[in-house]
Amino acid sequence: MRDILPADKARRERVLAVIRERYLAHGFDEIETPALEEYDRLHAGIGGDNEKLSYNVLRRGLDADGIRAAADDPAALSDLGLRYDLTVPLARFYASNRGQLPGVFRAIQIGPVWRAERPQKGRYRQFMQCDIDIMGDDSSRAEAELMVASLDALDTLGLGGATVRVNDRRLLEWMLDSFGFTQDERPGVLITIDKLDKIGVDGIVAELRERALRQARGTSSKAIDAFEAYLQRPQTLEYNPFGERQIRKALPENAPDDIVDHLVGLGEAVAAGSGRDDIPLVFDPFLVRGMGYYTGTIFELAHPSVSYSIGGGGRYDGMIGRFLGQQVPAVGFSLGFERLVDLVELDADAEAQAVVLVHDADVPVAELVAHKTALLATGGRVRLERRVKNFKALLERSAADGYTAFATVLAGAEPGTLELKPLN
Amino acid sequence: MRDILPADKARRERVLAVIRERYLAHGFDEIETPALEEYDRLHAGIGGDNEKLSYNVLRRGLDADGIRAAADDPAALSDLGLRYDLTVPLARFYASNRGQLPGVFRAIQIGPVWRAERPQKGRYRQFMQCDIDIMGDDSSRAEAELMVASLDALDTLGLGGATVRVNDRRLLEWMLDSFGFTQDERPGVLITIDKLDKIGVDGIVAELRERALRQARGTSSKAIDAFEAYLQRPQTLEYNPFGERQIRKALPENAPDDIVDHLVGLGEAVAAGSGRDDIPLVFDPFLVRGMGYYTGTIFELAHPSVSYSIGGGGRYDGMIGRFLGQQVPAVGFSLGFERLVDLVELDADAEAQAVVLVHDADVPVAELVAHKTALLATGGRVRLERRVKNFKALLERSAADGYTAFATVLAGAEPGTLELKPLN
Repeated sequence: MRDILPADKARRERVLAVIRERYLAHGFDEIETPALEEYDRLHAGIGGDNEKLSYNVLRRGLDADGIRAAADDPAALSDLGLRYDLTVPLARFYASNRGQLPGVFRAIQIGPVWRAERPQKGRYRQFMQCDIDIMGDDSSRAEAELMVASLDALDTLGLGGATVRVNDRRLLEWMLDSFGFTQDERPGVLITIDKLDKIGVDGIVAELRERALRQARGTSSKAIDAFEAYLQRPQTLEYNPFGERQIRKALPENAPDDIVDHLVGLGEAVAAGSGRDDIPLVFDPFLVRGMGYYTGTIFELAHPSVSYSIGGGGRYDGMIGRFLGQQVPAVGFSLGFERLVDLVELDADAEAQAVVLVHDADVPVAELVAHKTALLATGGRVRLERRVKNFKALLERSAADGYTAFATVLAGAEPGTLELKPLN
Repeated sequence: MRDILPADKARRERVLAVIRERYLAHGFDEIETPALEEYDRLHAGIGGDNEKLSYNVLRRGLDADGIRAAADDPAALSDLGLRYDLTVPLARFYASNRGQLPGVFRAIQIGPVWRAERPQKGRYRQFMQCDIDIMGDDSSRAEAELMVASLDALDTLGLGGATVRVNDRRLLEWMLDSFGFTQDERPGVLITIDKLDKIGVDGIVAELRERALRQARGTSSKAIDAFEAYLQRPQTLEYNPFGERQIRKALPENAPDDIVDHLVGLGEAVAAGSGRDDIPLVFDPFLVRGMGYYTGTIFELAHPSVSYSIGGGGRYDGMIGRFLGQQVPAVGFSLGFERLVDLVELDADAEAQAVVLVHDADVPVAELVAHKTALLATGGRVRLERRVKNFKALLERSAADGYTAFATVLAGAEPGTLELKPLN
């Protein structure tokens, strides 16, 4: 966790304001859920590894004896916890408030989440998430709206040229099944495939064979052979540009038509919405996305300026049903806000006047406040500063804080008559 | 705790944007601290009654035996807690980051706090606080800047005509001392005085006498007699308009000059800054403010439309020293955001176009997205809606969500050629 100082905070708020404005423009509605959710809900097996990282709040009203009695039962010791993502709370929100929401509900959520990660550079235990989700729409219109809105937000932030890597969980399942991996084997194989960027085709095959040797019943080496043959094809790792021919070429033969059609339709829709000549999507049959709750399309946001992903999401059609007892299709997109903030160069409005009024101790407070108010009435920002010995340092600090002009205030001056000098 | 639905959330964000913009204009800088603070800091005796209401986070890494071993030691069981206000974290922030902050630091803090209050109407366990504080300035310039900025924010929110009730903790101490109340007695007397609005002069005197009877050594009845005589004076409860004569008239004789001068100077400064003919301050010698950390000026924000206070604050010159080991003067003002939001009538920008595009299932997704993008390029908001049986209800819901126009999309229409119809 960390303190956020003024310059950083100002930049974060400017970035958030842009994201919020663009998402609202695209027809999304912002909501907010409490930071604390019920312990049982946070530990229902939906949150994957993040569940283990959750901060649990001590149940109130327990005395020392009560604590000892509850020591073996986490849910007796802790009734609430801090949310570790915004997706589990959204599913709960939708189930709780469905009657007051439109049939197709487009949600914006911007807020902090908490994870008890090991401290390391660039990882924080409290960080902002910035999600949009669409519930109640199973068509590719939903995915397309998420992607077009997010690409628009990035463009507005000065991060044009982003692309979305796309895959479908069902394609991954179908592909592994077609090679002969059993249902039990597939989760382990997916974890290995997820490392393709890091360890390459040879590393993947080696890891699969090694695991097969270690296991009692073993992964059938026939499945691994078939998968290796597919990976070694020259066209398998060439999946650009985005279109039906390229998608089919990159996949094993006879890929299911309905899923390929969904992807092709998605590509056309995003192309229509993004106003770019090329389709800003890349089909990646080896994109996995860790979370277990994804059921269909999955995607990650890439930008040419960085090697890591700056956002991602997918379809999770099964989750709301767990809270509501009725299936509702859902798909979400999460911007990696903490990473974005570092990339964006977004200066304060350079046109706005920001004036530092420097004064000595002898100027009456009422006069100072009157000068400030007179300048505020002309727009912009105003800050009072008592003159210090190192006047140059004062002016430099003011310029660094975004102030553009200064004036010296002497006792008895008429408000509105100060001579402003530029700060640079 | 509660979910915040779209219409409410939009209003809250509009109010926050206005407050943030006005405070920034007045030369304040926004910062952010983590929601979790160290247990020991939250329970250092600074937070008053709120300390008891804090949510404590279970220390991670304890197994059942560890929990049993820690059951008698709150700090061993819990190393972190959720902040119950923004003042304790600010003092910690200032002590941690002082080297990077200007000599006089004007802070904005906007964020949630948590208190395990008993559930009751209008009280939430998570709620927003919206504070400004000035550290490093012991002159009345600091109080004046807080008040003028807050009154400006209220004006901009359409809540003109607010006033600030002002007193000084040192005046209260001096007054009680002058009547003969001992230092031990004064905290109890202050708690009684704080009820003046509810129980009146007679109720106060009765409560003091009753308590004197109950106590072993008893409050000297001479002090109570003197206090009663002062309360019964006709001029004591007439403290308007704000000026030296009225302040002295309302107080017992020989009030300390330095404190009265500070208040009078403050009144002149706020008058100079608020652009109003009258001084928007009311001197109230019986304003107490509960928190024990106040050391000087205290104030509460009142608005003619409501009987409760919508903000308040005071000087707490001693607090930062507890973290920093060096005294730094500080004064803060907290807007009652949850109360303000209910008062403010702040509509979305009525000029902005917001269009609902109604379509049937046969319109290709790419065409829908292209229509949406073409309209977005002209500004405003756009939402896609599939046509439902109850078309009128769809239009009514859209209007309630702030949409101003709609168009029907048929397959094959050219983007940018849709005929928009007003929604009202």
